[in-house]
Amino acid sequence: MATHLEEIAVRSASREEMIDVTTLVRAAVRRIGVEAGLAYIYCPHTTAGVTIQENADPDVRTDLLGHLARLIPQDAGFRHSEGNADAHIKASLVGSSQMVPLDGGKLCLGTWQAVFFCEFDGPRSRRLLVKVVAG
Amino acid sequence: MATHLEEIAVRSASREEMIDVTTLVRAAVRRIGVEAGLAYIYCPHTTAGVTIQENADPDVRTDLLGHLARLIPQDAGFRHSEGNADAHIKASLVGSSQMVPLDGGKLCLGTWQAVFFCEFDGPRSRRLLVKVVAG
Amino acid sequence: MATHLEEIAVRSASREEMIDVTTLVRAAVRRIGVEAGLAYIYCPHTTAGVTIQENADPDVRTDLLGHLARLIPQDAGFRHSEGNADAHIKASLVGSSQMVPLDGGKLCLGTWQAVFFCEFDGPRSRRLLVKVVAG
Repeated sequence: MATHLEEIAVRSASREEMIDVTTLVRAAVRRIGVEAGLAYIYCPHTTAGVTIQENADPDVRTDLLGHLARLIPQDAGFRHSEGNADAHIKASLVGSSQMVPLDGGKLCLGTWQAVFFCEFDGPRSRRLLVKVVAG
Repeated sequence: MATHLEEIAVRSASREEMIDVTTLVRAAVRRIGVEAGLAYIYCPHTTAGVTIQENADPDVRTDLLGHLARLIPQDAGFRHSEGNADAHIKASLVGSSQMVPLDGGKLCLGTWQAVFFCEFDGPRSRRLLVKVVAG
Repeated sequence: MATHLEEIAVRSASREEMIDVTTLVRAAVRRIGVEAGLAYIYCPHTTAGVTIQENADPDVRTDLLGHLARLIPQDAGFRHSEGNADAHIKASLVGSSQMVPLDGGKLCLGTWQAVFFCEFDGPRSRRLLVKVVAG
């Protein structure tokens, strides 16, 4: 069963930010209209990523971004001249896509899980692609 | 072709642990009964993950968990008050899902590869979801 | 719709290297012959991975490999006796597979994105598996 690609617009407000896009992903999945399979969220950018994390305590996001910045500082003598080599590295470690099981029209996220767009070189206008594979 | 979601129960015995779940994943895939496509393993927890690694030498697991603990110590002045911010960060770096090609009813893992549940905040009772997309 | 698994041969020339395999992935997807769905690229090795990154400036690759080597040095007192524990750890962080949306027979990569095979313990002869899930 062929489905179309959905696109989600995301606007980040700072250089590093985790934005909960779960509601937007759910709406995109509903528009696609498949009840069961896998929901796939893809980030077409090289200085941003997607992760699945806790959305209950915002400190988790602060800790995650803060510790990544300690491990991969923006100014670590990188050769890439645009000043965002750290963002590229973080993006490759967090990953550019996630998949979530879809059952009965619902994302099978765990109790504490949400889908986050990870901005590492904002603020910018970004987009995510959402696809559903039926099955 | 619609298939059901399989659930695997995992019991971790220590705070950090890599548990080889390949046999359990293979059994779940067999119960689903699809011969070819992609097998998808999903971790619905935010302080645990899934990775594909070598299962021949257990030192590889010890080194992986040990080095992650050096890079992301439990007590690094995190704000999240539950004392497991490190586990959340490790989970996002390792990732919450893996996919393995399925061909002739068999997982196409490489010679040294196995599927590991990665516990970062145990001991706990955990679960994994397994789905197969035929194709 | 069942499709076959395609195999791509990759030859790395140094211990650590990011090799742009986008052209090879595109050719494999064309041979599979599906117009829409998800293209899946799998690395069956435990000391190598796959990532999606920028291919415009080669310094991004140098920075990524260089910084990973600083975070995970080859000689960090690891127990694994083969001298490549660092490669195993890097492989689990970068990940063993990637998926890219496929639409109208084309990979929906972002403007600056390419698919890279990440060698962490070369030089070696390696392989990647490519599968397409129609949908």
